[in-house]
Amino acid sequence: MSAFDNLNQHFQKIANFNHLAAICGWDAAAMMPAGGNDSRSKAMAELSVHIHGLKTESQLEDWFDKAESEQLDTDQQSQLREMKRNWQLSNVLPAKLVEAKSLAGSKCEHAWRTQRGENDWEGFVKNWKRVVELSIEEAQIRADILGSTPYDAMLDIYEPGVNQAELTKLFDEVKTWLPDLIDKAIEKQSSQSILLPTGTYSTESQKALGLEVMKLLQFDFNHGRLDESVHPFCGGVPQDVRLTTRYNEQEFVQSLMGIVHETGHARYEQGLPKYITGLPAGEARSMGIHESQSLFFEMQLGRSDEFITHLSKLANKHFAQHDSKIFEPQNLSRIYTQVKRDFIRVDADELTYPAHVILRYEIERDLINGDINYKDLPEAWDAKMQAYLGLSTKGNFTNGCMQDIHWTDGAFGYFPSYTLGAMYAAQFKASMAKDLNIGQAIESGDLSPIFNWLEQKIWSKGSLLGTNELVTQATGEALNAEHFKKHLTERYL
Amino acid sequence: MSAFDNLNQHFQKIANFNHLAAICGWDAAAMMPAGGNDSRSKAMAELSVHIHGLKTESQLEDWFDKAESEQLDTDQQSQLREMKRNWQLSNVLPAKLVEAKSLAGSKCEHAWRTQRGENDWEGFVKNWKRVVELSIEEAQIRADILGSTPYDAMLDIYEPGVNQAELTKLFDEVKTWLPDLIDKAIEKQSSQSILLPTGTYSTESQKALGLEVMKLLQFDFNHGRLDESVHPFCGGVPQDVRLTTRYNEQEFVQSLMGIVHETGHARYEQGLPKYITGLPAGEARSMGIHESQSLFFEMQLGRSDEFITHLSKLANKHFAQHDSKIFEPQNLSRIYTQVKRDFIRVDADELTYPAHVILRYEIERDLINGDINYKDLPEAWDAKMQAYLGLSTKGNFTNGCMQDIHWTDGAFGYFPSYTLGAMYAAQFKASMAKDLNIGQAIESGDLSPIFNWLEQKIWSKGSLLGTNELVTQATGEALNAEHFKKHLTERYL
Repeated sequence: MSAFDNLNQHFQKIANFNHLAAICGWDAAAMMPAGGNDSRSKAMAELSVHIHGLKTESQLEDWFDKAESEQLDTDQQSQLREMKRNWQLSNVLPAKLVEAKSLAGSKCEHAWRTQRGENDWEGFVKNWKRVVELSIEEAQIRADILGSTPYDAMLDIYEPGVNQAELTKLFDEVKTWLPDLIDKAIEKQSSQSILLPTGTYSTESQKALGLEVMKLLQFDFNHGRLDESVHPFCGGVPQDVRLTTRYNEQEFVQSLMGIVHETGHARYEQGLPKYITGLPAGEARSMGIHESQSLFFEMQLGRSDEFITHLSKLANKHFAQHDSKIFEPQNLSRIYTQVKRDFIRVDADELTYPAHVILRYEIERDLINGDINYKDLPEAWDAKMQAYLGLSTKGNFTNGCMQDIHWTDGAFGYFPSYTLGAMYAAQFKASMAKDLNIGQAIESGDLSPIFNWLEQKIWSKGSLLGTNELVTQATGEALNAEHFKKHLTERYL
Repeated sequence: MSAFDNLNQHFQKIANFNHLAAICGWDAAAMMPAGGNDSRSKAMAELSVHIHGLKTESQLEDWFDKAESEQLDTDQQSQLREMKRNWQLSNVLPAKLVEAKSLAGSKCEHAWRTQRGENDWEGFVKNWKRVVELSIEEAQIRADILGSTPYDAMLDIYEPGVNQAELTKLFDEVKTWLPDLIDKAIEKQSSQSILLPTGTYSTESQKALGLEVMKLLQFDFNHGRLDESVHPFCGGVPQDVRLTTRYNEQEFVQSLMGIVHETGHARYEQGLPKYITGLPAGEARSMGIHESQSLFFEMQLGRSDEFITHLSKLANKHFAQHDSKIFEPQNLSRIYTQVKRDFIRVDADELTYPAHVILRYEIERDLINGDINYKDLPEAWDAKMQAYLGLSTKGNFTNGCMQDIHWTDGAFGYFPSYTLGAMYAAQFKASMAKDLNIGQAIESGDLSPIFNWLEQKIWSKGSLLGTNELVTQATGEALNAEHFKKHLTERYL
């Protein structure tokens, strides 16, 4: 057996254990009763240790060395590249640092769950200091190997091929037009009236509606299912995608579009290349590309006039006892495009969302590169919120710098993916529009042409191409934020 | 660390992987869409190989040797004994034989799923011949180590401490009174009228009723849940018991009592000793004792007049639109104790069930000991069905010797557990009746005294005691089939 075959077989074994982790992880969030948590945590920790052991087995280095001089075709070279990347990500850090960061992160995150509600920055920072220190240590080690800045090395975990020089340029450009666009949109919307949902929307009706929307989006129910969890997510494995949502019986708006969003993630997973399923090259390209698919579904498809017309009909069908004026396309559209300056990222609308991300990007970049200190966080946050959204968070840690979970366990480098995803989605839409009549496809109720385009150009590529290659092959150019600007301007002005 | 501690730690690791297997196994039966099967099968096979690898690691032999001369208290000695038993069961067979039997069994079982419906004995026997041969080979290897008959060695897998001499004596005794009792019961019931369920019983109502009955039976919903699957079972782990049922909207009778049955299994699991959870000594004692708990719930509690009165009230509540005459206690009781000579074991009533089991016991015993040939099965089956239930299965393989899944993959030695369970249940009931007023406890709706008795005497013992010791400590005597005879006579005459 060639070294390449050995590697493939070994990574197939890892994929099998990852499968178990994915299903049991979904179960813990969507099915498991609270009392099952202790033994589940032990079992999951055991599985993590086992998977880490497989990823760090000593013969792998030798196999990689040999495989690199074996005769491989282009496709196999890509597979090898992604296995190696996966292996390096797992092997680059000393076990002691991994353990220390995991412990410090768990401790900080756990305490944060209470401290956030209590606005307790002083308490939080006691734990967080260590998380930041260890993250900087991690970034430095990764940076030494990559020959990059520390923050670039963290970015590389989630967005291989993206660096801070590029991101800063991109986001600086956005900052030149976004605040003004937000102002104008709010001004324009101030004269529009909106009917908000009233009454009760039963979970069963919402679920039936959600399932019908998933069918419209051609979710493959033979390879996946919809359930409920406190924090909606898209989990499972490509052949069995486990999508979750949560229902609020006071309104249907959020859960409905949440399902559209998660279905975007799900269809990407379901469309990944099957012959290398579960192997590194068969996985999603990056967090940003993953988000580009969910945001393509949620923002590009889901908020289009034609799609809103479908939603309107379906809402009328499933909520027949409610005032149908709420479900009129124009009203639904206004609900779904309402712009508001607010504190919380996860509740932010399409237009203000990038401001929340840019703020976090700039802070985490400077923090990891050592240009600001962990103590400076509240001040930096307040200054940027004032500048980008005109809101003060002075003394308000709960809805300010303590609102997100990401940093509590040291996931620095992740935030940019959200806005990169929005930008890629707008660019894919612009490019797709040259190839087919998107509005007509949505209107017809058969969205296949749209999904065929995505499947062919994005989903079926897995990680066989680098991100830049993928985007360039799909759209004829590298990432270009102009498409995003154009999309937002057209929708909000 | 002592060798005993090493063993404990190692078996804890195995328990963690068993946890994942249990949850993913439940998921495959209750949640997974059909398209997920391929990748799940691969993941589960990988996990099996891994668990088998852990159970056969070479250092274990040394640890067992050393641990046996370490200072251990009685409890630890029991733990060691059960770890060793578990280890021996996994290590006694050559890997080649395990693989060959697994392959032959899968092939035979898979083909049987079609062949049974087609009454195709000739086709079936072509595959089954190999399963029988390999099972005999397995039994012989196990027997050589245990110094027992081949069939005893197979019994030992499911019912440690039980042997064929004892079983034959027990079942021969049952055969002296059972056919006559069946005759008399059918004669007595022939003059009784029964109202059978008509109309539709919605899945939702049945589920709501089932959940309320589980509450009455004090199922701990913080450590378990109820779902649906084609073949009802009780899976998961003690801290998170996954119970399933299936609903037939034409009637509610079967699913309802099915839930009572599975809740018996579930409460045993939930009541197993927590300080050794997942370790061999912390597991259920045997298949027969497991079945004794489900049958205690289903037959001793569930069919008692006082419990039927609860069911009657609850059925009236959940099926308010139906004719309440169906739910009258006397009618419900008659439905649940109707005796019928019929072909199919899984549909058999309490009274004819032992006849089905004894028939299978005698055949599999003679088959594994080499006293009859695999070709003789249809004739032996027909002769015994004629003798015990007065039914001919000549030429009827579908509802005769091809009806069960057990033998298709070589699970010889399992069938006696069903009737052993029924006997243990009757004996536990008789003994419990000396300590407390069972009828009054059920009537009051607070069944705690009953469950406390079971928890104290059965559940909390796990596998710390041998079966005979467990039964003797709980009831003051070894297994005594007189209690079973008395129970059946009182109920059916």
